[in-house]
Amino acid sequence: MTEIASDSTFLAETTNLLGRTPLVLQALLSSLPASWTDTPDTPDGWRPRDVVGHLITGELADWMARTNRILEHGSSKAFDRFDRFAMLDRDRDRSLDDLVAQFASLRAANLRALAALGLGDADLDCVGLHPSLGEVTLRNLLATWSVHDLDHTGQIYAGLAGSHDAAVGPWKVYLGILLRRNDPAAVAR
Amino acid sequence: MTEIASDSTFLAETTNLLGRTPLVLQALLSSLPASWTDTPDTPDGWRPRDVVGHLITGELADWMARTNRILEHGSSKAFDRFDRFAMLDRDRDRSLDDLVAQFASLRAANLRALAALGLGDADLDCVGLHPSLGEVTLRNLLATWSVHDLDHTGQIYAGLAGSHDAAVGPWKVYLGILLRRNDPAAVAR
Repeated sequence: MTEIASDSTFLAETTNLLGRTPLVLQALLSSLPASWTDTPDTPDGWRPRDVVGHLITGELADWMARTNRILEHGSSKAFDRFDRFAMLDRDRDRSLDDLVAQFASLRAANLRALAALGLGDADLDCVGLHPSLGEVTLRNLLATWSVHDLDHTGQIYAGLAGSHDAAVGPWKVYLGILLRRNDPAAVAR
Repeated sequence: MTEIASDSTFLAETTNLLGRTPLVLQALLSSLPASWTDTPDTPDGWRPRDVVGHLITGELADWMARTNRILEHGSSKAFDRFDRFAMLDRDRDRSLDDLVAQFASLRAANLRALAALGLGDADLDCVGLHPSLGEVTLRNLLATWSVHDLDHTGQIYAGLAGSHDAAVGPWKVYLGILLRRNDPAAVAR
């Protein structure tokens, strides 16, 4: 597909993407009417507020904790597991705007902490131990942090689109983002 | 899923979403390194620049042209078809940043033109004729404009993620946005 970039470039380009996600979420979601934001991506899926809550959990418990685990313990101590559904109770009484603002604050702090580590090329090859996946590198972890952002932001788009499933009328047959909510195998764009 | 809002609310909330797309694309794509932006969403799909070009075509040839067609001719004159692939030649020599800026400019002009129509509730029930789908309302058209934004922005996310398919290593099995590029039926999140 694409060659993996040299390490210093890789780190700069990964943090470049990571720094954009809060800006995108603010542009997309801040003060957006609830008629857009109350629908999950799939019938038993997540609403935009649930997705942002999940991203908050990642900032609190996952990415930097695992980065530090790799640097301190290598593969001798597996990562702690984290609760993919922690937000459902934790954030029940928070507004979506509050959650977006909290995510932005946590992400900024984590990017400062990552920069403060002063990672060099050799560090990115350090190996850690995922409790299910086995050995992974720090480079894998940082790339996954950014692609996880992209995956879940895409999930927000599916929920937003789903809120207007009825309103598009006959056009639904051309809108893959709606068809895939009902049948993930639907490919139409 | 969600009840269709009253018309004046519907129009305000639809234009609210439409106004955000240029801001999201600027936050996500402006000056983003090419290592992120050179990969299509699927093997024979579109790179982010192709998607933005397709959105530009919509602003030039589709949404407002069809709005005006409905208001002027109702269902007596079908919409003109438009070229889904017009951007592949037209935008060949443009930078992604240029395309994002052009889209923002066209979208702003179209939202001004839409507001200048002063649409009332009855207008949204006006019926037009789609060359393949048959009768559609102006409300359907405007809702589709916004969901089309969401669909194609999601496509940009898939391309960005795909550029880092190799870099995530073992984590790919958890990243639905990557799995679906290879197999649309893959559901994992």
